[in-house]
Amino acid sequence: MSESGSKARSHGRFSVQVSAQPRDLMQDPRTVRGAWRARVITLFPEAFPGTLGLSLTGKALDQGLWALEAIALRQFGEGRHRNVDDTPAGGGAGMVLRADVVTRALAEASQGTPPDRKLWPIVYLSPRGQRFDQGTARSWAAAEGVTIICGRFEGVDQRVLDRFAIQEVSLGDFVMTGGEIAAQAMIDATVRLLPGVLGNAASTEEESFSDGLLEHPQYTRPAIWEGREIPAELTSGNHAEVEKWRRAEAERITAERRPDLWAAYLARNSRG
Amino acid sequence: MSESGSKARSHGRFSVQVSAQPRDLMQDPRTVRGAWRARVITLFPEAFPGTLGLSLTGKALDQGLWALEAIALRQFGEGRHRNVDDTPAGGGAGMVLRADVVTRALAEASQGTPPDRKLWPIVYLSPRGQRFDQGTARSWAAAEGVTIICGRFEGVDQRVLDRFAIQEVSLGDFVMTGGEIAAQAMIDATVRLLPGVLGNAASTEEESFSDGLLEHPQYTRPAIWEGREIPAELTSGNHAEVEKWRRAEAERITAERRPDLWAAYLARNSRG
Repeated sequence: MSESGSKARSHGRFSVQVSAQPRDLMQDPRTVRGAWRARVITLFPEAFPGTLGLSLTGKALDQGLWALEAIALRQFGEGRHRNVDDTPAGGGAGMVLRADVVTRALAEASQGTPPDRKLWPIVYLSPRGQRFDQGTARSWAAAEGVTIICGRFEGVDQRVLDRFAIQEVSLGDFVMTGGEIAAQAMIDATVRLLPGVLGNAASTEEESFSDGLLEHPQYTRPAIWEGREIPAELTSGNHAEVEKWRRAEAERITAERRPDLWAAYLARNSRG
Repeated sequence: MSESGSKARSHGRFSVQVSAQPRDLMQDPRTVRGAWRARVITLFPEAFPGTLGLSLTGKALDQGLWALEAIALRQFGEGRHRNVDDTPAGGGAGMVLRADVVTRALAEASQGTPPDRKLWPIVYLSPRGQRFDQGTARSWAAAEGVTIICGRFEGVDQRVLDRFAIQEVSLGDFVMTGGEIAAQAMIDATVRLLPGVLGNAASTEEESFSDGLLEHPQYTRPAIWEGREIPAELTSGNHAEVEKWRRAEAERITAERRPDLWAAYLARNSRG
């Protein structure tokens, strides 16, 4: 988002609520120009930043390395009671978020954002969606920001998903009461990939999934604990031996626990 | 956990911190006898209940239908600075949680809990673990409670995982700054399955994964939105036709998006 675009847009209807210390993050002078932004459309803006306000993600938020805007869906509701949902067509339990209400929230969230969805994905969190994984986190981190619609109830009217080509993304094969925690999980995984967020850059390189393998076991002091020693290879002081042991363990654990990742790893390495 | 067991144990070293309104949930008179309990060992107890304190899970927490205890790992640290971690044996980036420190926290968390891990799972959150899914949520909901160790840094000393046969559980194939948000996601998915938490019991039955299929599309008012109509089958008033359409759509979407679930569904139905 350009600086001029940011200035030109109206802030009036945004409801930015940060549980610790409410402030309009769009106008926060600490936010670094061009910083990555997450906009979350939710019935529970008070859920944000939540855990994202702590630890490394919270420190980076305070430093303006990224920005978080919670957009209250309720303000776009219908009538005096600001209704956002209605009963499912065809009957059944639960309630469905209305297409017109979600559209108004999206219009607000889209101000100043690039129309190219690769530069600014718009996603709806749903167990029906594509699984969020490290590749998704990388592509979001490479974008300028992301807009996330948090569901509640039985879902959202399909027409709004179709109309705006909204990508459905899933945290996993389980059902939650709402999308807020899932949004936080995905934002956490994305933000830690942004420049300057993790103190130690090496940490993101060595870890799980970077090479398609699960991580090897880790050990630390004390050297002997309850009669159990650290594997001799790790205390050998021989760097090559350490690396060999770690690679073998990562391969063993991946083969044992995740045949799918292991097969993909073997296929990649045979091609290479 | 029995009532007498609850009374017999010391509360002294527990640090229960609830961001909204601090109180000792173990002694909360509102907690229903035999209510499901989540104990979370974490460096960020202030992250709890977080979003779990809102909406349906928060209402159920207030009603005592479940209980949440955040156990501060820091209090079990070594020395004057309460160090909980140390450098990885064999070198490398990041820090590893110490086996002795985690063991002391586990001893605290295990008070009054049944030793049978089916009745009270003890899990460590890690991308190396078994994928959390709806089946995991169901098995946790059927237990008396769960103890969750939230990682930070590069992981935990493997010896403590081996020594206590701790189950490693993963939220998905991505890396987070810590386990706190993942713990909240899993607790949310579990708590909503507990009796009385969801107002409408039918809702849990009809939804995603209950029959191994992704959910059919949903529609609600207005009947025509931006020239787009609700599918005629859903507005037919013919219950059998509605069910037939929904089943066909659920099958179509599952086949398109999740070949793995679709294959499993076909295999189950051919056997049946």
